[in-house]
Amino acid sequence: MAEELKEAGGKVRLYVTAPLAAGAAVAPDEGQTHYLLHVMRAKAGDRVALFNGRDGQWLAEIAQAAKRAVILRCLTQSAPQAEVPDLWLAFAPIKKTPSDYLVQKAAELGVRALLPVFTRRTIVSRVNIERMGANAIEAAEQSGRLSVPRVAAAVPLERLLADWPRERRLYFCDESLDAAPLAEAARGHGGPAAILTGPEGGFDPGERAPLRALSFVVPVTLGPRILRADTAALAALAIWQSVAGDFSQQGKFEP
Amino acid sequence: MAEELKEAGGKVRLYVTAPLAAGAAVAPDEGQTHYLLHVMRAKAGDRVALFNGRDGQWLAEIAQAAKRAVILRCLTQSAPQAEVPDLWLAFAPIKKTPSDYLVQKAAELGVRALLPVFTRRTIVSRVNIERMGANAIEAAEQSGRLSVPRVAAAVPLERLLADWPRERRLYFCDESLDAAPLAEAARGHGGPAAILTGPEGGFDPGERAPLRALSFVVPVTLGPRILRADTAALAALAIWQSVAGDFSQQGKFEP
Repeated sequence: MAEELKEAGGKVRLYVTAPLAAGAAVAPDEGQTHYLLHVMRAKAGDRVALFNGRDGQWLAEIAQAAKRAVILRCLTQSAPQAEVPDLWLAFAPIKKTPSDYLVQKAAELGVRALLPVFTRRTIVSRVNIERMGANAIEAAEQSGRLSVPRVAAAVPLERLLADWPRERRLYFCDESLDAAPLAEAARGHGGPAAILTGPEGGFDPGERAPLRALSFVVPVTLGPRILRADTAALAALAIWQSVAGDFSQQGKFEP
Repeated sequence: MAEELKEAGGKVRLYVTAPLAAGAAVAPDEGQTHYLLHVMRAKAGDRVALFNGRDGQWLAEIAQAAKRAVILRCLTQSAPQAEVPDLWLAFAPIKKTPSDYLVQKAAELGVRALLPVFTRRTIVSRVNIERMGANAIEAAEQSGRLSVPRVAAAVPLERLLADWPRERRLYFCDESLDAAPLAEAARGHGGPAAILTGPEGGFDPGERAPLRALSFVVPVTLGPRILRADTAALAALAIWQSVAGDFSQQGKFEP
């Protein structure tokens, strides 16, 4: 966490689960406490920004900084609560390092939920949801978001589709068949929406046909080159945000 | 190289510098030879795809596979030479691991040239051009491209701008000022173009004003969140390709 926060301009921004309101006392968790005391060398009176996904962003000060405990006190709300656009990413899990990267980037690009999904050619058999959640929090803190992406339990593709909320468009990044470019298919369709990307080996033909037959599935292409799984997911999120999401909104959040 | 090629579907695709023509013999380099012999366990008669950035893609067979040497022979051209859209990426260099990732992803997303540029807040002082070149080749092989992105020598921002070819639009990813969304600014402007992204700390105000005064510079925004340097670069490349590049073209290359 430390390094990323410093890179974001020296402003400390923490995600907490406690309610935030004027005068409320908040105890950061163990990792945040360590970070504040031993990385930032925070002292009583120093200021940080807090968010919890519900109460907006709050300016807080360090009320107590003992050897192993910190108490923060909320001063004023610096931004009202706001949500990212209603976009999910359903993705075949990939190896550890690219997976960390994917979760981080997807959170920065403003995804609302991450849904790992096992496809026929998915090689990775175990998904570390806790690790994904921690990466998502870190990226949310760094990016100025006021919410943390939800990380769903990994499920097989059939299960994902059977339980799918039908009013949510699912943009299926199809590698080899004819499909509309994502920028054209998504333009003006502000959500609810989701992107579906496959594993390194792509989708199986036995998965493609049933997918394309579903009313909520929109097959899309990401151009003529073969993209790695994580590249495809990030490119699709960026394109969706630019034609249907909030990339046309001005102004960065400031703690 | 090995793992990525296997992930791309078991098809071996190699970048070589030698001329390619019917019957031409090609000696792969040391790394490729090792890969063919000891990773792929290639034997005489096995087939691979070759490209050199000039002569299209060629189907070749292994004419000789000795202990430490391989000779490939070109059979037929399987695709005519083609270029990616005329898009460059000028970027402040970042740390080693994200830099590897950025070069790989940029190559997959179809960038024609990579231009490392030192800005005032750039922390990284040394740029490993050779490593970037190797990563670019590997990603080109994997992605089905018929060319390898050129990696330019790192130069200070002032120098980059002084030498800039004025007919090439430079989309300046400006973090805090008012600017048009990239998707709107770039739509229909097919190139020559370039994306400029800053270091983790962003551009200095003393860099922003002169940049915005240049006739070829188009300031653009990538939405309300704070993006890491590499995220911003990849998002911008994907968006440009989707509104002005070749993401609307169908069909993947096949070796």
